[in-house]
Amino acid sequence: MRLLLISNSTMAGEEYLDYPKNNIKDFLGDKPVKALFIPYAGVTVSFDEYEAKVKAKFNEVGHDIVSIHHFEDPVKAVEEAEAIVVGGGSTWNMLHLVHKNNLTEAIRKRVISENVPYIGWSAGSNLACPTIKTTNDMPIIDPLGFDALNLIPFQINPHYLDKNPDGHGGETREDRINEFMVVNTDMYVAGLREGSMFLVENGKINLIGKLNCRIFKNNVQAYELSPKDDFNFLLK
Amino acid sequence: MRLLLISNSTMAGEEYLDYPKNNIKDFLGDKPVKALFIPYAGVTVSFDEYEAKVKAKFNEVGHDIVSIHHFEDPVKAVEEAEAIVVGGGSTWNMLHLVHKNNLTEAIRKRVISENVPYIGWSAGSNLACPTIKTTNDMPIIDPLGFDALNLIPFQINPHYLDKNPDGHGGETREDRINEFMVVNTDMYVAGLREGSMFLVENGKINLIGKLNCRIFKNNVQAYELSPKDDFNFLLK
Repeated sequence: MRLLLISNSTMAGEEYLDYPKNNIKDFLGDKPVKALFIPYAGVTVSFDEYEAKVKAKFNEVGHDIVSIHHFEDPVKAVEEAEAIVVGGGSTWNMLHLVHKNNLTEAIRKRVISENVPYIGWSAGSNLACPTIKTTNDMPIIDPLGFDALNLIPFQINPHYLDKNPDGHGGETREDRINEFMVVNTDMYVAGLREGSMFLVENGKINLIGKLNCRIFKNNVQAYELSPKDDFNFLLK
Repeated sequence: MRLLLISNSTMAGEEYLDYPKNNIKDFLGDKPVKALFIPYAGVTVSFDEYEAKVKAKFNEVGHDIVSIHHFEDPVKAVEEAEAIVVGGGSTWNMLHLVHKNNLTEAIRKRVISENVPYIGWSAGSNLACPTIKTTNDMPIIDPLGFDALNLIPFQINPHYLDKNPDGHGGETREDRINEFMVVNTDMYVAGLREGSMFLVENGKINLIGKLNCRIFKNNVQAYELSPKDDFNFLLK
């Protein structure tokens, strides 16, 4: 299984999908790949517009995409995909359409049994988790079930951030993850800061990026691991 | 119907439930009221501890609460309540337990038909809306359906805030509400900033607080209304 699970598409002030483009290039390899793009998280952007944005960046690094909304049979599109790419936006809208189009088992089969590379960012990284219960997004639509692809056995919290804006009295992200752990006692949560990504291949997982990742487990004090540390316990 | 729907319990740097305590006092009136408290949004706090915190503040202003978790029959507790108070925390855990304990129709009957006062803050204000689809909370548990009490015909986004923390590249709250409106085209959303609350009584609604409220509707440019403005269109 080969996964590239990216926290966020865009660093503040930078171009869309710019910072991870070379990681995507390396992950897909030297031979040009035309990946299947799943734009379902896009809500305030049309699927055509979303495809064009992502395609432009993939083309910059010698690869290409085609969006699943052009196919009459989305399950068949997954069955024939060279690689699968799931973009960010609304995790809820994404999972709603993944479920509605019966894609869960098709994607799992390709990625787990047939070694088709999977790239996700933001909502697309949450989709690789057991559930979407660690998304930050507003639940604008019933996802038709909280279960996601379960490609990895732990939860990612993408866009992990440490503080509230000044003067804001609500719960911090860490407070929210602490609530998750009380209700989901057996699950690790990885707080994946912006600019970070997980690379899963050959049965191993590595953190890529400049920042640490924050690890949460029920009844354990949350702690930091750096890109040099061993994250393989997360896959057990 | 009488509702006091508060954005947040606590202003940064202040004591728990301090800023709205006099609004709660005025809302419940001169005669001491012993309200039924629903602590289901509390996850990292025990229901006993949560009750004690809220009770202390209600006692300061001449009123009292008792938490629903002390009653063997929660529906009967609602049927006999003088007032209903729903605290903040995890909107998801709250709605899960409201549904599990079959409280929706019991609360609606008391509040709508029998004029029992309802006070909510944060998750408790979201509970008064048609659904919880404008919560900011992490979906730590399946709520057993997204429908809420539907006491008001519009959605509140509590803890509304304008900006992301510096350097954060993710969607703003306004971006998220814009996504909500694309999928829920007929619904008004009121972005209720911290320190603000809605008072609903005698068929009218007023905004209380120092800050403006931001109003969202699909295909309408979001706009600001002040506590002096007329909000009654939201009840239509």
